Amino acid sequence: MVLTSDLAAHAERLGKVSLRTLADSGETRSNRLLARAAGIEFDASKQRLDEAALNALFKAAREAGLEEQRDKLLSGGVVNPTEDRPALHMAYRHGARISGTPEAELVDRTQAQTRAFAETVRSGDYAPSALPIARVINIGIGGSDLGPRLVADALSDLAGDGPELRFVASLDPSDLKQAVSGAEPEAILFVVASKSFSTQETLMSAEAARDWLEGHVGPERAGAHFVAASAAPDKARAFGIAPEHVFDFPDWVGGRYSVWSAVGLALEIGLGPDLFEDFRAGARDMDAHFAVAPLEENIPVLKGLIDVWNRVALGYPSRCVAAYSARLGKLADYFQQLEMESLGKSVTLDNRPGPTPGGALVWGGNGTEIQHSFFQWLHQGRDVVPVDFIGIARHFASSDPRERALAANMAAQGAALLDGRQVDPEAEPLLAAHKSMPGGRPSNTLLLDDLSARTLGALIALHEHKVFVESVMYEINPFDQWGVELGKVLTKGILDGEISEYDASTRALLARTGLIQD
Amino acid sequence: MVLTSDLAAHAERLGKVSLRTLADSGETRSNRLLARAAGIEFDASKQRLDEAALNALFKAAREAGLEEQRDKLLSGGVVNPTEDRPALHMAYRHGARISGTPEAELVDRTQAQTRAFAETVRSGDYAPSALPIARVINIGIGGSDLGPRLVADALSDLAGDGPELRFVASLDPSDLKQAVSGAEPEAILFVVASKSFSTQETLMSAEAARDWLEGHVGPERAGAHFVAASAAPDKARAFGIAPEHVFDFPDWVGGRYSVWSAVGLALEIGLGPDLFEDFRAGARDMDAHFAVAPLEENIPVLKGLIDVWNRVALGYPSRCVAAYSARLGKLADYFQQLEMESLGKSVTLDNRPGPTPGGALVWGGNGTEIQHSFFQWLHQGRDVVPVDFIGIARHFASSDPRERALAANMAAQGAALLDGRQVDPEAEPLLAAHKSMPGGRPSNTLLLDDLSARTLGALIALHEHKVFVESVMYEINPFDQWGVELGKVLTKGILDGEISEYDASTRALLARTGLIQD
Repeated sequence: MVLTSDLAAHAERLGKVSLRTLADSGETRSNRLLARAAGIEFDASKQRLDEAALNALFKAAREAGLEEQRDKLLSGGVVNPTEDRPALHMAYRHGARISGTPEAELVDRTQAQTRAFAETVRSGDYAPSALPIARVINIGIGGSDLGPRLVADALSDLAGDGPELRFVASLDPSDLKQAVSGAEPEAILFVVASKSFSTQETLMSAEAARDWLEGHVGPERAGAHFVAASAAPDKARAFGIAPEHVFDFPDWVGGRYSVWSAVGLALEIGLGPDLFEDFRAGARDMDAHFAVAPLEENIPVLKGLIDVWNRVALGYPSRCVAAYSARLGKLADYFQQLEMESLGKSVTLDNRPGPTPGGALVWGGNGTEIQHSFFQWLHQGRDVVPVDFIGIARHFASSDPRERALAANMAAQGAALLDGRQVDPEAEPLLAAHKSMPGGRPSNTLLLDDLSARTLGALIALHEHKVFVESVMYEINPFDQWGVELGKVLTKGILDGEISEYDASTRALLARTGLIQD
Repeated sequence: MVLTSDLAAHAERLGKVSLRTLADSGETRSNRLLARAAGIEFDASKQRLDEAALNALFKAAREAGLEEQRDKLLSGGVVNPTEDRPALHMAYRHGARISGTPEAELVDRTQAQTRAFAETVRSGDYAPSALPIARVINIGIGGSDLGPRLVADALSDLAGDGPELRFVASLDPSDLKQAVSGAEPEAILFVVASKSFSTQETLMSAEAARDWLEGHVGPERAGAHFVAASAAPDKARAFGIAPEHVFDFPDWVGGRYSVWSAVGLALEIGLGPDLFEDFRAGARDMDAHFAVAPLEENIPVLKGLIDVWNRVALGYPSRCVAAYSARLGKLADYFQQLEMESLGKSVTLDNRPGPTPGGALVWGGNGTEIQHSFFQWLHQGRDVVPVDFIGIARHFASSDPRERALAANMAAQGAALLDGRQVDPEAEPLLAAHKSMPGGRPSNTLLLDDLSARTLGALIALHEHKVFVESVMYEINPFDQWGVELGKVLTKGILDGEISEYDASTRALLARTGLIQD
C-alpha cells in the first residue's frame, strides 16, 4: 500500500491535535476502539485516530481485498505464491476450513501420535536407559525454539508434574552444556525440531548431544534418547532416530507458525497434552473471531490496521511490546520474529521492488523492569514509538498488592506517554525543561482475562492474523523469507575457504583471526 | 550537536558511494578504522566513512570540547549538573583520578567489607539458620538487576564452587516464586540492591521474600538472611537488616553504572572476589586507554563518534547489538539500558529544549539465533539499521567446529549486510526481486580475545565511555533520568484512587478492571 492521499490528509490533520484531546473526546472511542474476543480485551483508545480516519482505514482495507484474502487464507488457498503453497498452521487447531483433505488427515494422525508419545513419556514408561525421562531438551532455532520457549515460560507453573523443559538454540557449546547440567544423562530426552533436518545450528548441536550421550549410555542406546519434528524422516533415521519417533512437520507450516504442530512436542510432554490442547483451543477461539467478525469489530483487523496507520501514515519506524508479566519474558522476542521475518520485505507479491514499507521494527521487554531501562528514552527522547501494553486483567483487582501495583504501573505508563507533563519554568527555572515531557505518544492496551493456556493461544493467533492483515495492506508475502539465504551461502564459503569474492574488510577479518589463510 | 554543514556534506557524498567500494578502498581503512585495547579489537571498516569524513568527525569532537570533558569526568568533576554531582563509578576500579579523597576512602572501605563478607559466605561460615548459604538471590531492578544478571550469565561457568545466583526484578509474584524454587529456605541469602531502599518493586519483593522466609526460619532469624547495597542504612535497618550488612551504594554512582560497586555483591559471592576483581581490572584497562589514547586511536571515542555519525549525519534511528555467544544473553538488554536511559533526552545541558537527537534506539539479541528471527528484516526491509557484531576471537580458530561455525556466521552476516546480492531476472524471472538484497548496511565488529572477566569488564567500560562521548556531542547530561519520574507519580495516584485529572481512556480502563471506582 502506497500511502493514499486520503490517509495522508487524516494523518496531517490529526498530527495537530493533542492526544489528550483525542482520548477525552468521548463515547465514539470506546465504541470503535475497544473490542473483546477469546478472553482478550483490545483497547486502542490511546491511538492518534478518530472516526473519520478509522473509516478511511477500513475503506483502504476493503479496497485492498482484505476480506477476500482472509477467506483465501482460511480456506487453504495458495497465500505463499513465491513458494507455491498454502499456509495451514491453523489446521493444527482446526481453525482452517480444510476438513476432509489429506492435510487434515495428516494433522489428525500426527496429533494422535504426539499425544500418545507424550503420555508414554509422562507416565515414565518410556525409559530407553532404564530411567524415566526427567528432562526434555528441545534442540531447534528460530520458530523451532522461540515458540516452545515462550509457552514453556508462560505455562510451566500451571502444569502438573512432568519432565522439566530446557532449550538449546545456540552453536555456542556452553548452551548445550548448561542444558544438560544437573540431569542424569539416562533421564534426558532430546527433541530435535528442524523441518529439513539439516539446519546447521540444530544439526551440529544434536550431533554434539549425541556424542555426549553416547559417552554415558553407549552408542546402541543413544538413538532412543532422540525424537524429531521433521519433514525429512530419512535424514532423521540416518541420525539414529527410529521412524516411529519422527513426527511430521510438513512444509505448509512455516517455522514461525509451527508451535501448534509437532514442533510443540516438548511442550506436549512437559505441560501435558491437555494443557497443550487448551493452548490450541485458545488459538481456535481467535481463528473463529477473525473468520466471522465484521472488520470494524475484528481484533486482528483493527490491530493490524492500527499498526499500518502508525507505520505508514504517521511514519513511526518501530513499535514496542511491553508485557507486564514475568511469565511472558519471551513474548517480545516471539512477536519480533513473527512480525519481522514475515513483514521485513520490500518487494510486492507481483514483483514490484519497493516502495512498500513492510512491517516496523518490533522490540520490547517486560514491565516494570523496562521502566527502569529504556522508558526514559520513550518519554523524553526525540523519537515517538507506539507501545503495546500487554497485561493481565485479573491483576487490577488482585488481593496481592504486588499484582495491583504491576497493573497500576502499566496503566500509569500509558497515561504518562499520552499526556506528558509541563513543569512551570517559574517554579523550577533550572530544571523545568529537564523535567517536562512532551507526551503525545500513542499506545494500545491488551488485557488477557488471566494468563492461561487458552488466552496465550488466543494472543499468539491474534498476532499471526494481524501480521497477515498488515501483509495484505503492504502487498507482500508474509510466509516466505528469502532474505536469510545469502548469509547461509556466505557462511559456507567461509568454512570452505572460498572467499576470494568477499569484500576486503571481511577477508582481512578472517585472515587476522586465523579462520582463513587469505 | 546540531548537524554541521560539513558533516552533512560528507554524509550526502558518501551516501552515493557503494559500501562495498568503500570497504575495498584499501589500507586507509585499517589504519583509521581498526583499533585494539584491553583485549578487544574494534573493527569499523564496514562503516560508511572515509578519511575526510573521519577528519570532520574528530574536528567536531574537538570543537565540542571532548578532551576537556573527558578529563573532567575522570578527575571527578561535576558532570551531572542537574543533580549537582560527579559520576564516580570508575572509582570502584580505580579508573578515576580521585585518590586521597573521601570518596576514594569510602570505595576502599566498602570493597574490603564486601570482599570479607563474600569470603565468609563462600566458606560456609555465614549460616544464619545453621545451613551454609547455597543460593544468593539478588532483588533489584534496572541497574541493580541487569548488571549482576549479565555478569552472572557470562562468567558463572568460569567460577569455581560457590552459591548459585538467582534474580528477582518483577513485581509479578511468579518471579520470586521461581527464584526460591528448589532451594532450602535456610540456605538462601537475599541481597537487596536499592540506593534509596524505597524502590517500589524492590521493596515489595523484599517484603514478600521476608514474609515467606519468616514462615520457614521464624521472624527472629529471617533478618539475617538479608543484606543490602544501599545509601539508606536506616531504612534497611528498619526492614530488619543488621547495620554491618548494609554496604554503601553512594549517590555519586548511577544505577546503570553500579555493577562495579556493592551492587555487585551477589556476583562477588557467587563468582568469588578474585574473579570479580578481574572484572573490575578489565574496566580499569579500558579506563586507562580512554584516558590517554589520542582521540583518533581511542576506541570509546571512535565508537561514540561512529554512533553519532550514524544517528545524526546518516539519520539511522536505531542500532542493533548482535552478540555471538550464548553467555552474553543479556548484553543487548544491558547496553539498551545503559544507552537509552543515558541518552534518551532532548534538552541540552544549558536548558535548551531540542533539537538534540539524543541516542538511538538500541535493540538486539544473540547470534546465530537472531539470524532465524529478525535478520530477514535487516536484509530485505526498507529501513537501514547499523549492527554491532560482538564475538569471540578465539572461536575463529577453535578446534570445536561449532565455535568456528559461530564465528563464520558472524563474519558472513557482516559481509551480506554490506554487499547484498543481485539475482539476475533473466535467470529467475519470478523470484529475482524476492531473492535480491540491497546491501549497503554498515556494521562494526567487536572481538573479545576470549570471553573472560577481564574482557567483559573492558567491553562494558568501553560502552560506558562511548555513551559519555555521545553525550558530549549531543550536549546532554547522560547521568540523570528525570523522564522516569512522572510514571511513578501517576502510579501512586492510581493506587491512592486519585485519578480525576487523568485522561478518559485511562479512567475508563481503571473503572472496567475494578482497580478504581471512577
